[in-house]
Amino acid sequence: MPQQRRAQLTRRAIVVAAAEEFDRAGYDAVPLSAILRRSGVTKGAFYFHFSSKEELALALVRLQAERWPRLQRAWLRRELDPLSIAVGMLNDAARLIEQDVVIRAGTQLARHRIAEDEESHELAWEPLLQDLLRRSAVSGLLRPGVDPMAVARVAYTAVVGASVVGCSEMGPGAAARMEEVWRVTLRGVASPEWLSNRRSR
Amino acid sequence: MPQQRRAQLTRRAIVVAAAEEFDRAGYDAVPLSAILRRSGVTKGAFYFHFSSKEELALALVRLQAERWPRLQRAWLRRELDPLSIAVGMLNDAARLIEQDVVIRAGTQLARHRIAEDEESHELAWEPLLQDLLRRSAVSGLLRPGVDPMAVARVAYTAVVGASVVGCSEMGPGAAARMEEVWRVTLRGVASPEWLSNRRSR
Repeated sequence: MPQQRRAQLTRRAIVVAAAEEFDRAGYDAVPLSAILRRSGVTKGAFYFHFSSKEELALALVRLQAERWPRLQRAWLRRELDPLSIAVGMLNDAARLIEQDVVIRAGTQLARHRIAEDEESHELAWEPLLQDLLRRSAVSGLLRPGVDPMAVARVAYTAVVGASVVGCSEMGPGAAARMEEVWRVTLRGVASPEWLSNRRSR
Repeated sequence: MPQQRRAQLTRRAIVVAAAEEFDRAGYDAVPLSAILRRSGVTKGAFYFHFSSKEELALALVRLQAERWPRLQRAWLRRELDPLSIAVGMLNDAARLIEQDVVIRAGTQLARHRIAEDEESHELAWEPLLQDLLRRSAVSGLLRPGVDPMAVARVAYTAVVGASVVGCSEMGPGAAARMEEVWRVTLRGVASPEWLSNRRSR
Protein backbone atom coordinates (compact mmCIF):
# COMPACT_ATOMS: atom_id res chain seq x y z
CA MET A 1 0.00 0.00 0.00
CA PRO A 2 1.48 3.41 -0.92
CA GLN A 3 2.44 5.46 2.12
CA GLN A 4 0.07 8.31 1.32
CA ARG A 5 -2.91 5.98 1.08
CA ARG A 6 -1.98 4.35 4.38
CA ALA A 7 -1.77 7.78 6.04
CA GLN A 8 -5.26 8.62 4.73
CA LEU A 9 -6.66 5.39 6.17
CA THR A 10 -5.06 6.09 9.56
CA ARG A 11 -6.45 9.63 9.60
CA ARG A 12 -9.91 8.32 8.71
CA ALA A 13 -9.71 5.65 11.45
CA ILE A 14 -8.91 8.34 14.03
CA VAL A 15 -11.73 10.59 12.82
CA VAL A 16 -14.33 7.81 12.91
CA ALA A 17 -13.18 6.54 16.34
CA ALA A 18 -13.32 10.08 17.74
CA ALA A 19 -16.81 10.65 16.29
CA GLU A 20 -18.04 7.38 17.82
CA GLU A 21 -16.58 8.21 21.22
CA PHE A 22 -17.84 11.83 21.27
CA ASP A 23 -21.28 10.64 20.12
CA ARG A 24 -21.41 8.01 22.87
CA ALA A 25 -20.11 9.93 25.87
CA GLY A 26 -19.81 13.62 24.91
CA TYR A 27 -16.62 15.48 23.93
CA ASP A 28 -15.77 16.49 27.46
CA ALA A 29 -15.84 12.95 28.89
CA VAL A 30 -13.67 11.32 26.22
CA PRO A 31 -9.92 11.05 26.93
CA LEU A 32 -7.50 10.82 24.03
CA SER A 33 -6.60 7.30 25.23
CA ALA A 34 -10.17 6.10 24.46
CA ILE A 35 -9.87 7.39 20.88
CA LEU A 36 -6.48 5.69 20.47
CA ARG A 37 -7.87 2.43 21.85
CA ARG A 38 -10.91 2.46 19.58
CA SER A 39 -8.97 3.40 16.46
CA GLY A 40 -6.07 1.01 17.15
CA VAL A 41 -3.67 3.86 16.31
CA THR A 42 -0.50 4.55 18.28
CA LYS A 43 0.09 7.85 20.02
CA GLY A 44 2.90 8.60 17.60
CA ALA A 45 0.70 8.03 14.56
CA PHE A 46 -2.04 10.15 16.14
CA TYR A 47 0.29 13.11 16.67
CA PHE A 48 1.45 12.84 13.05
CA HIS A 49 -2.14 13.76 12.05
CA PHE A 50 -3.48 15.89 14.91
CA SER A 51 -1.81 18.05 17.54
CA SER A 52 -4.61 17.67 20.10
CA LYS A 53 -8.18 16.55 20.83
CA GLU A 54 -9.23 20.14 20.02
CA GLU A 55 -7.75 19.93 16.52
CA LEU A 56 -9.60 16.66 16.01
CA ALA A 57 -12.86 18.34 17.03
CA LEU A 58 -12.20 21.07 14.48
CA ALA A 59 -11.63 18.43 11.78
CA LEU A 60 -15.05 16.90 12.57
CA VAL A 61 -16.71 20.33 12.45
CA ARG A 62 -15.11 20.95 9.03
CA LEU A 63 -16.24 17.58 7.67
CA GLN A 64 -19.91 18.32 8.45
CA ALA A 65 -19.58 21.94 7.26
CA GLU A 66 -18.34 20.67 3.87
CA ARG A 67 -21.10 18.07 3.61
CA TRP A 68 -24.15 20.35 3.83
CA PRO A 69 -23.47 22.55 0.76
CA ARG A 70 -23.03 19.35 -1.31
CA LEU A 71 -26.37 18.03 -0.08
CA GLN A 72 -28.06 21.40 -0.66
CA ARG A 73 -26.68 21.80 -4.19
CA ALA A 74 -27.62 18.24 -5.15
CA TRP A 75 -31.25 18.94 -4.20
CA LEU A 76 -31.33 22.40 -5.81
CA ARG A 77 -30.19 20.86 -9.12
CA ARG A 78 -33.07 18.36 -9.20
CA GLU A 79 -35.99 18.89 -11.54
CA LEU A 80 -38.56 19.17 -8.81
CA ASP A 81 -40.97 21.85 -7.65
CA PRO A 82 -39.55 24.07 -4.84
CA LEU A 83 -41.77 22.55 -2.13
CA SER A 84 -40.62 19.01 -2.99
CA ILE A 85 -37.02 20.23 -2.88
CA ALA A 86 -37.49 21.73 0.60
CA VAL A 87 -39.14 18.53 1.86
CA GLY A 88 -36.59 16.19 0.31
CA MET A 89 -33.60 18.27 1.38
CA LEU A 90 -34.51 18.32 5.07
CA ASN A 91 -35.51 14.64 5.13
CA ASP A 92 -32.15 13.86 3.56
CA ALA A 93 -30.27 16.04 6.08
CA ALA A 94 -32.03 14.29 8.99
CA ARG A 95 -31.21 10.88 7.51
CA LEU A 96 -27.54 11.83 7.10
CA ILE A 97 -27.31 12.98 10.75
CA GLU A 98 -28.95 9.76 11.88
CA GLN A 99 -26.82 7.42 9.80
CA ASP A 100 -23.37 9.05 9.62
CA VAL A 101 -21.64 9.25 12.98
CA VAL A 102 -18.94 11.62 11.67
CA ILE A 103 -21.52 14.12 10.42
CA ARG A 104 -23.59 13.71 13.61
CA ALA A 105 -20.64 14.25 15.96
CA GLY A 106 -19.37 17.19 13.88
CA THR A 107 -22.79 18.84 13.93
CA GLN A 108 -23.02 18.43 17.71
CA LEU A 109 -19.54 19.88 18.23
CA ALA A 110 -20.42 22.86 16.02
CA ARG A 111 -23.71 23.40 17.85
CA HIS A 112 -22.04 23.32 21.27
CA ARG A 113 -19.36 25.67 19.95
CA ILE A 114 -16.64 23.25 21.04
CA ALA A 115 -14.85 23.99 17.81
CA GLU A 116 -15.56 26.73 15.33
CA ASP A 117 -14.78 26.75 11.65
CA GLU A 118 -14.11 30.31 10.58
CA GLU A 119 -14.37 29.53 6.88
CA SER A 120 -17.69 27.75 6.69
CA HIS A 121 -19.21 27.86 3.20
CA GLU A 122 -22.51 26.38 4.34
CA LEU A 123 -25.55 28.09 2.91
CA ALA A 124 -27.55 29.15 5.94
CA TRP A 125 -30.49 26.74 6.10
CA GLU A 126 -33.19 29.18 7.10
CA PRO A 127 -32.72 31.70 4.24
CA LEU A 128 -32.43 28.80 1.77
CA LEU A 129 -35.72 27.34 3.02
CA GLN A 130 -37.34 30.77 2.94
CA ASP A 131 -36.38 31.13 -0.72
CA LEU A 132 -37.82 27.68 -1.56
CA LEU A 133 -41.05 28.36 0.35
CA ARG A 134 -41.45 31.81 -1.21
CA ARG A 135 -41.15 30.21 -4.66
CA SER A 136 -43.65 27.54 -3.57
CA ALA A 137 -46.17 30.25 -2.64
CA VAL A 138 -45.65 32.07 -5.96
CA SER A 139 -46.21 28.80 -7.85
CA GLY A 140 -49.47 28.17 -6.01
CA LEU A 141 -48.17 25.13 -4.11
CA LEU A 142 -49.27 26.56 -0.74
CA ARG A 143 -52.80 27.18 0.48
CA PRO A 144 -54.03 30.77 0.40
CA GLY A 145 -53.24 32.63 3.62
CA VAL A 146 -50.18 30.54 4.50
CA ASP A 147 -47.09 32.61 5.37
CA PRO A 148 -44.16 30.95 3.54
CA MET A 149 -41.58 32.59 5.85
CA ALA A 150 -43.29 31.05 8.88
CA VAL A 151 -43.33 27.60 7.24
CA ALA A 152 -39.59 27.94 6.48
CA ARG A 153 -38.80 28.84 10.10
CA VAL A 154 -40.95 25.96 11.39
CA ALA A 155 -39.21 23.52 9.04
CA TYR A 156 -35.76 24.65 10.20
CA THR A 157 -36.77 24.55 13.88
CA ALA A 158 -38.15 21.04 13.30
CA VAL A 159 -35.08 19.62 11.56
CA VAL A 160 -32.87 20.79 14.43
CA GLY A 161 -35.32 19.26 16.92
CA ALA A 162 -35.50 16.01 14.92
CA SER A 163 -31.69 15.79 14.89
CA VAL A 164 -31.39 16.36 18.64
CA VAL A 165 -34.33 14.22 19.81
CA GLY A 166 -33.98 11.54 17.14
CA CYS A 167 -30.33 10.87 18.00
CA SER A 168 -30.53 10.96 21.78
CA GLU A 169 -33.88 9.73 23.04
CA MET A 170 -36.37 6.91 22.76
CA GLY A 171 -38.79 6.71 19.88
CA PRO A 172 -38.36 7.40 16.17
CA GLY A 173 -35.00 8.46 14.73
CA ALA A 174 -34.20 11.82 13.16
CA ALA A 175 -35.30 10.89 9.62
CA ALA A 176 -38.65 9.40 10.70
CA ARG A 177 -39.28 12.44 12.93
CA MET A 178 -38.59 14.89 10.09
CA GLU A 179 -40.85 12.97 7.71
CA GLU A 180 -43.59 13.03 10.32
CA VAL A 181 -43.18 16.79 10.79
CA TRP A 182 -43.77 17.31 7.07
CA ARG A 183 -46.73 14.87 7.01
CA VAL A 184 -48.47 16.64 9.90
CA THR A 185 -47.57 20.19 8.84
CA LEU A 186 -48.22 19.97 5.10
CA ARG A 187 -51.88 18.90 5.66
CA GLY A 188 -52.80 22.51 6.36
CA VAL A 189 -50.04 24.19 4.39
CA ALA A 190 -49.66 22.59 0.94
CA SER A 191 -52.29 22.96 -1.77
CA PRO A 192 -54.66 19.98 -2.20
CA GLU A 193 -53.21 19.43 -5.71
CA TRP A 194 -49.64 19.23 -4.43
CA LEU A 195 -50.71 16.81 -1.69
CA SER A 196 -52.60 14.53 -4.07
CA ASN A 197 -49.73 14.57 -6.59
CA ARG A 198 -47.39 13.63 -3.77
CA ARG A 199 -49.58 10.77 -2.62
CA SER A 200 -49.81 9.36 -6.13
CA ARG A 201 -46.01 9.38 -6.63
CA MET B 1 -28.62 39.31 57.87
CA PRO B 2 -28.90 35.84 59.43
CA GLN B 3 -26.07 33.54 58.44
CA GLN B 4 -28.30 30.94 56.78
CA ARG B 5 -29.92 33.57 54.56
CA ARG B 6 -26.51 34.91 53.57
CA ALA B 7 -25.34 31.39 52.66
CA GLN B 8 -28.43 30.95 50.45
CA LEU B 9 -27.70 34.21 48.64
CA THR B 10 -24.09 33.18 48.06
CA ARG B 11 -25.14 29.79 46.71
CA ARG B 12 -27.65 31.46 44.39
CA ALA B 13 -25.03 33.95 43.16
CA ILE B 14 -22.71 31.06 42.28
CA VAL B 15 -25.48 29.16 40.49
CA VAL B 16 -26.56 32.17 38.41
CA ALA B 17 -22.96 33.13 37.54
CA ALA B 18 -22.21 29.54 36.47
CA ALA B 19 -25.37 29.39 34.35
CA GLU B 20 -24.46 32.68 32.63
CA GLU B 21 -20.91 31.53 31.93
CA PHE B 22 -21.91 28.03 30.68
CA ASP B 23 -24.63 29.61 28.53
CA ARG B 24 -22.17 32.09 27.03
CA ALA B 25 -19.14 29.91 26.35
CA GLY B 26 -20.13 26.26 26.95
CA TYR B 27 -19.37 24.16 30.05
CA ASP B 28 -16.07 22.91 28.74
CA ALA B 29 -14.58 26.34 28.05
CA VAL B 30 -15.45 27.93 31.43
CA PRO B 31 -12.77 27.79 34.16
CA LEU B 32 -13.86 27.96 37.79
CA SER B 33 -12.03 31.30 38.03
CA ALA B 34 -14.51 32.86 35.56
CA ILE B 35 -17.44 31.75 37.74
CA LEU B 36 -15.78 33.15 40.86
CA ARG B 37 -15.08 36.45 39.10
CA ARG B 38 -18.63 36.82 37.81
CA SER B 39 -20.26 35.87 41.12
CA GLY B 40 -17.88 37.93 43.28
CA VAL B 41 -17.51 34.93 45.59
CA THR B 42 -14.19 33.84 47.11
CA LYS B 43 -12.73 30.40 46.47
CA GLY B 44 -13.26 29.52 50.13
CA ALA B 45 -16.95 30.45 49.98
CA PHE B 46 -17.33 28.52 46.74
CA TYR B 47 -15.91 25.31 48.24
CA PHE B 48 -18.24 25.68 51.21
CA HIS B 49 -21.14 25.14 48.74
CA PHE B 50 -19.71 23.00 45.94
CA SER B 51 -16.82 20.57 45.77
CA SER B 52 -16.18 21.07 42.04
CA LYS B 53 -17.43 22.48 38.74
CA GLU B 54 -19.01 19.04 38.13
CA GLU B 55 -21.10 19.31 41.30
CA LEU B 56 -22.23 22.77 40.22
CA ALA B 57 -23.32 21.35 36.85
CA LEU B 58 -25.34 18.69 38.68
CA ALA B 59 -27.02 21.40 40.78
CA LEU B 60 -28.09 23.20 37.57
CA VAL B 61 -29.41 19.95 36.08
CA ARG B 62 -31.44 19.36 39.26
CA LEU B 63 -32.88 22.88 39.24
CA GLN B 64 -34.31 22.44 35.74
CA ALA B 65 -35.46 18.87 36.50
CA GLU B 66 -37.48 20.20 39.45
CA ARG B 67 -38.98 23.05 37.45
CA TRP B 68 -40.67 21.04 34.67
CA PRO B 69 -43.05 18.94 36.82
CA ARG B 70 -44.26 22.18 38.47
CA LEU B 71 -44.93 23.74 35.08
CA GLN B 72 -46.62 20.58 33.81
CA ARG B 73 -48.86 20.21 36.90
CA ALA B 74 -49.86 23.89 36.83
CA TRP B 75 -51.12 23.48 33.24
CA LEU B 76 -52.81 20.12 33.88
CA ARG B 77 -54.82 21.70 36.73
CA ARG B 78 -56.21 24.46 34.51
CA GLU B 79 -59.82 24.30 33.34
CA LEU B 80 -58.96 24.15 29.67
CA ASP B 81 -59.55 21.64 26.89
CA PRO B 82 -56.65 19.19 26.42
CA LEU B 83 -55.46 20.76 23.15
CA SER B 84 -55.23 24.22 24.75
CA ILE B 85 -53.28 22.67 27.64
CA ALA B 86 -50.79 21.04 25.25
CA VAL B 87 -50.35 24.33 23.34
CA GLY B 88 -50.03 26.50 26.46
CA MET B 89 -47.68 24.10 28.23
CA LEU B 90 -45.12 23.95 25.41
CA ASN B 91 -45.27 27.71 24.74
CA ASP B 92 -44.67 28.25 28.45
CA ALA B 93 -41.74 25.78 28.51
CA ALA B 94 -40.12 27.53 25.52
CA ARG B 95 -40.60 30.92 27.19
CA LEU B 96 -39.00 29.67 30.41
CA ILE B 97 -35.97 28.32 28.54
CA GLU B 98 -35.62 31.62 26.71
CA GLN B 99 -35.97 33.86 29.77
CA ASP B 100 -34.37 31.92 32.64
CA VAL B 101 -30.64 31.40 32.22
CA VAL B 102 -30.47 28.85 35.08
CA ILE B 103 -33.16 26.66 33.49
CA ARG B 104 -31.61 27.10 30.04
CA ALA B 105 -28.09 26.17 31.17
CA GLY B 106 -29.39 23.23 33.24
CA THR B 107 -31.38 21.91 30.28
CA GLN B 108 -28.32 22.16 28.02
CA LEU B 109 -26.11 20.36 30.55
CA ALA B 110 -28.71 17.59 30.90
CA ARG B 111 -29.06 17.28 27.13
CA HIS B 112 -25.29 17.01 26.62
CA ARG B 113 -25.14 14.49 29.48
CA ILE B 114 -22.49 16.59 31.24
CA ALA B 115 -24.29 15.88 34.51
CA GLU B 116 -27.00 13.35 35.16
CA ASP B 117 -29.64 13.47 37.85
CA GLU B 118 -30.52 9.91 38.85
CA GLU B 119 -33.67 10.92 40.71
CA SER B 120 -35.49 13.00 38.10
CA HIS B 121 -39.22 13.21 38.76
CA GLU B 122 -39.94 14.88 35.45
CA LEU B 123 -42.93 13.53 33.59
CA ALA B 124 -41.58 12.52 30.23
CA TRP B 125 -42.82 15.15 27.80
CA GLU B 126 -43.69 12.92 24.87
CA PRO B 127 -46.06 10.51 26.72
CA LEU B 128 -47.68 13.49 28.47
CA LEU B 129 -48.31 15.19 25.11
CA GLN B 130 -49.56 11.92 23.64
CA ASP B 131 -52.13 11.66 26.44
CA LEU B 132 -53.31 15.26 25.88
CA LEU B 133 -53.55 14.79 22.10
CA ARG B 134 -55.37 11.46 22.46
CA ARG B 135 -57.92 13.19 24.68
CA SER B 136 -58.15 16.03 22.15
CA ALA B 137 -59.00 13.51 19.41
CA VAL B 138 -61.65 11.82 21.59
CA SER B 139 -63.22 15.22 22.33
CA GLY B 140 -63.41 16.06 18.61
CA LEU B 141 -60.84 18.87 18.79
CA LEU B 142 -58.78 17.37 15.95
CA ARG B 143 -59.76 17.02 12.32
CA PRO B 144 -60.82 13.57 11.15
CA GLY B 145 -57.88 11.48 9.96
CA VAL B 146 -55.28 13.25 12.11
CA ASP B 147 -53.04 10.87 14.10
CA PRO B 148 -52.82 12.33 17.63
CA MET B 149 -49.62 10.37 18.42
CA ALA B 150 -47.91 11.90 15.38
CA VAL B 151 -48.98 15.41 16.43
CA ALA B 152 -47.60 14.78 19.94
CA ARG B 153 -44.25 13.63 18.54
CA VAL B 154 -44.09 16.63 16.19
CA ALA B 155 -44.86 19.02 19.07
CA TYR B 156 -42.11 17.52 21.23
CA THR B 157 -39.60 17.53 18.36
CA ALA B 158 -40.52 21.17 17.71
CA VAL B 159 -40.15 22.39 21.30
CA VAL B 160 -36.67 20.89 21.49
CA GLY B 161 -35.80 22.51 18.15
CA ALA B 162 -37.26 25.85 19.27
CA SER B 163 -35.18 25.72 22.46
CA VAL B 164 -31.96 24.94 20.62
CA VAL B 165 -32.40 27.29 17.63
CA GLY B 166 -34.18 30.06 19.54
CA CYS B 167 -31.40 30.34 22.13
CA SER B 168 -28.37 30.08 19.87
CA GLU B 169 -29.03 31.57 16.46
CA MET B 170 -30.38 34.62 14.67
CA GLY B 171 -34.07 35.17 14.25
CA PRO B 172 -37.00 34.63 16.60
CA GLY B 173 -36.45 33.33 20.16
CA ALA B 174 -37.62 29.99 21.54
CA ALA B 175 -41.09 31.20 22.61
CA ALA B 176 -41.89 32.94 19.31
CA ARG B 177 -40.66 29.87 17.40
CA MET B 178 -42.85 27.50 19.41
CA GLU B 179 -45.91 29.73 18.96
CA GLU B 180 -45.24 29.79 15.22
CA VAL B 181 -44.97 25.98 15.13
CA TRP B 182 -48.43 25.71 16.67
CA ARG B 183 -49.87 28.39 14.37
CA VAL B 184 -48.59 26.66 11.22
CA THR B 185 -49.29 23.10 12.39
CA LEU B 186 -52.74 23.55 13.93
CA ARG B 187 -54.19 24.92 10.63
CA GLY B 188 -54.46 21.38 9.29
CA VAL B 189 -54.72 19.55 12.60
CA ALA B 190 -57.23 21.29 14.91
CA SER B 191 -60.97 21.28 14.18
CA PRO B 192 -62.36 24.47 12.59
CA GLU B 193 -64.43 25.06 15.77
CA TRP B 194 -61.40 24.88 18.04
CA LEU B 195 -59.49 27.26 15.74
CA SER B 196 -62.30 29.81 15.60
CA ASN B 197 -62.81 29.63 19.38
CA ARG B 198 -59.11 30.23 19.80
CA ARG B 199 -59.09 33.22 17.47
CA SER B 200 -62.04 34.82 19.29
CA ARG B 201 -60.38 34.50 22.72
